[in-house]
Amino acid sequence: MTLTGRAYRVELRFFRFVNRQAMAVYTPAEIGMPLAEVDTPSLILDLDAFERNLDLLDASLAGKPVKVRPHAKSHKCPEIALRQLARGAVGVCCQKVSEAEAMVQGGVSDVLITNEVVGAAKLKRLAALAKRARIAVCADDADNVIALDQAARAAGVTLSVLAEVNVGANRCGVEPGEPALQLARRIAACGHLRFAGLQAYHGSAQHLRKVEERRAAIEQAAARVRLTTGLLDRAGIACEKVTGAGTGTYLFEAVSGAYDEIQPGSYIFMDADYGRNDWTGSGIPGFEHSLFVWATVMSRPVPERALVDAGLKAFSVDSGMPRVADLEGVECVRASDEHGVLRVNGTLRLVVGDRLKLIPGHCDPTVNLHDDLVCVRAGRVEAIWPIAARGAVW
Amino acid sequence: MTLTGRAYRVELRFFRFVNRQAMAVYTPAEIGMPLAEVDTPSLILDLDAFERNLDLLDASLAGKPVKVRPHAKSHKCPEIALRQLARGAVGVCCQKVSEAEAMVQGGVSDVLITNEVVGAAKLKRLAALAKRARIAVCADDADNVIALDQAARAAGVTLSVLAEVNVGANRCGVEPGEPALQLARRIAACGHLRFAGLQAYHGSAQHLRKVEERRAAIEQAAARVRLTTGLLDRAGIACEKVTGAGTGTYLFEAVSGAYDEIQPGSYIFMDADYGRNDWTGSGIPGFEHSLFVWATVMSRPVPERALVDAGLKAFSVDSGMPRVADLEGVECVRASDEHGVLRVNGTLRLVVGDRLKLIPGHCDPTVNLHDDLVCVRAGRVEAIWPIAARGAVW
Repeated sequence: MTLTGRAYRVELRFFRFVNRQAMAVYTPAEIGMPLAEVDTPSLILDLDAFERNLDLLDASLAGKPVKVRPHAKSHKCPEIALRQLARGAVGVCCQKVSEAEAMVQGGVSDVLITNEVVGAAKLKRLAALAKRARIAVCADDADNVIALDQAARAAGVTLSVLAEVNVGANRCGVEPGEPALQLARRIAACGHLRFAGLQAYHGSAQHLRKVEERRAAIEQAAARVRLTTGLLDRAGIACEKVTGAGTGTYLFEAVSGAYDEIQPGSYIFMDADYGRNDWTGSGIPGFEHSLFVWATVMSRPVPERALVDAGLKAFSVDSGMPRVADLEGVECVRASDEHGVLRVNGTLRLVVGDRLKLIPGHCDPTVNLHDDLVCVRAGRVEAIWPIAARGAVW
Repeated sequence: MTLTGRAYRVELRFFRFVNRQAMAVYTPAEIGMPLAEVDTPSLILDLDAFERNLDLLDASLAGKPVKVRPHAKSHKCPEIALRQLARGAVGVCCQKVSEAEAMVQGGVSDVLITNEVVGAAKLKRLAALAKRARIAVCADDADNVIALDQAARAAGVTLSVLAEVNVGANRCGVEPGEPALQLARRIAACGHLRFAGLQAYHGSAQHLRKVEERRAAIEQAAARVRLTTGLLDRAGIACEKVTGAGTGTYLFEAVSGAYDEIQPGSYIFMDADYGRNDWTGSGIPGFEHSLFVWATVMSRPVPERALVDAGLKAFSVDSGMPRVADLEGVECVRASDEHGVLRVNGTLRLVVGDRLKLIPGHCDPTVNLHDDLVCVRAGRVEAIWPIAARGAVW
């Protein structure tokens, strides 16, 4: 191949398109098809459960002084983002520039990248995207702030930048208090940046099993936020908003008085790992499992074992094996590339060709394995939503 | 959308193509680009190491009475398959019909699907593919054999079917001996099927850490094969070939006298989990790590911690965290969707913007996360090979 630059990339995309097109049944479903006929393994969305989850979030937040900005890294699907926006979300969160590009391309006009963006190529795309939509991004490093300012100046835009503060997750972020104040000053001092507030997400709190552990973690996070906003206030730096929270804790942030915006993502799908959290007395509603990997029994060699045609390439196991839905006496105990190994109560009738639904251990990386979300209602395919940002890691 | 059937699928593909095209820098590299400029996270192939691995396999098998049929589930890339065939491989293995379709589309003319294929839609595609290339498939269930025969008859082809035998992995497969003989009889009795031999892969042996454990497991597998081929022989059923083996054990199968064909896949890449095997005295050569996830340091909040922009959506963690290549004093200790958390020796100079290579824990599901393999030689991008069967789980 002798093409270069953009022409080469277009050629490569087209090659891939033609190559895939040649594989006749690459889309596992057609609209109107009974679920029983949908090819496996595929990613199924129960639309009724999904819509009830949207309702439950809204109801749980009625009267609470926070805005909702759902995290799109969970679904990577503009069709879902648009439904969240239609219910009053102020925008979406993304984790990468390319994910944000897919959302803007899909009709979303307000995106917060809840992450640091590093490197000239990405910063150029980020600044370009800020001409097409309201874009904000996080920073936790002084040199990165300078690079953001330069990229914004080169593109002729003003970029909104939030200071990411470590409120307990020990991932990215400057420490609360003085270090955060210094970073905010640097951002505010840049001619082509606007200091847009604090990113204060406590990721590791989300899967603490006990309600009281999660509540305590968020109380501590809120204290760290207040320490920082107090300093900003005394320094005369306006803090437009504090944003954070996930499905495991969002109601605690919502009532803390310290947060203005919350970022839950998984509530729409409710994976098996979130299902292991205790919720009693948390006030957070009982979200339903709406996302499933649809799988076929492909082997039943002995009574105590069955194999399904979904494995590591159809679901992620970083947060444990998937759970088998709606069927007692069957447990997914291990997985290889294209096999899920089920331990079966020997008396259960389960034969080659039977189909079943697996609840993914972790929804986000599972969604990222699939190109299409097969949307089902009353046992039939109602829609097929492209997972437009699948693989958008840049 | 009101289109249906194939027209709808074409529309959906085209929508996805246009949608992706709109994301300007979706291809992380250009030919001729220095590695340092390749966007992250991306999947890098060190071509020199890859080619040495191809050589090492060949050299280790010189004079051994087996043919090589590498497993394409590891790479999903016709460009690699064609290079394996050019060095004398008799064909490739695939795990799914859609993976086989991608290989045939990419120029491979002989594919063994080392797996059961279940369901009318898939069997129809399997039979259609058998008109375009030499295709063989496995079975371990009597009813599935009947379904295979019907699909072959409907398409007007004769399908080659191997009986999968459980030689110790306890995944799919009938038990050795009498059950395998019965299954072979059923296959041989079908008018549109040809009994093509035994699939005898011992998957769980591949990652036993000690050489002697792996050798003993394969001796047991070979004994189970011989029990079965002895019965077939006495029953007058010709067993054309016995096929199996992976990177961890292939030389033991090769010298066992029980196997005719071997199926190593990971030897071309050599992931971190295979790197934890002991190889001393096995005769299996020291394959090099040739596959890397190229990542950027995006945050260095405290001396003992750095974050890279590659997480669960850039590498699979089912076999453990990736290892950091070529750098002492840094360890990847956990991962979230888009973050890899590195524990750093505090004195190491590692700043935001630095790039590093991660050796994936498990190559197969890591490859399946990426659309392109960025092929590098002497620090420059020499080629970009599409991972054509990425996501081909059907």
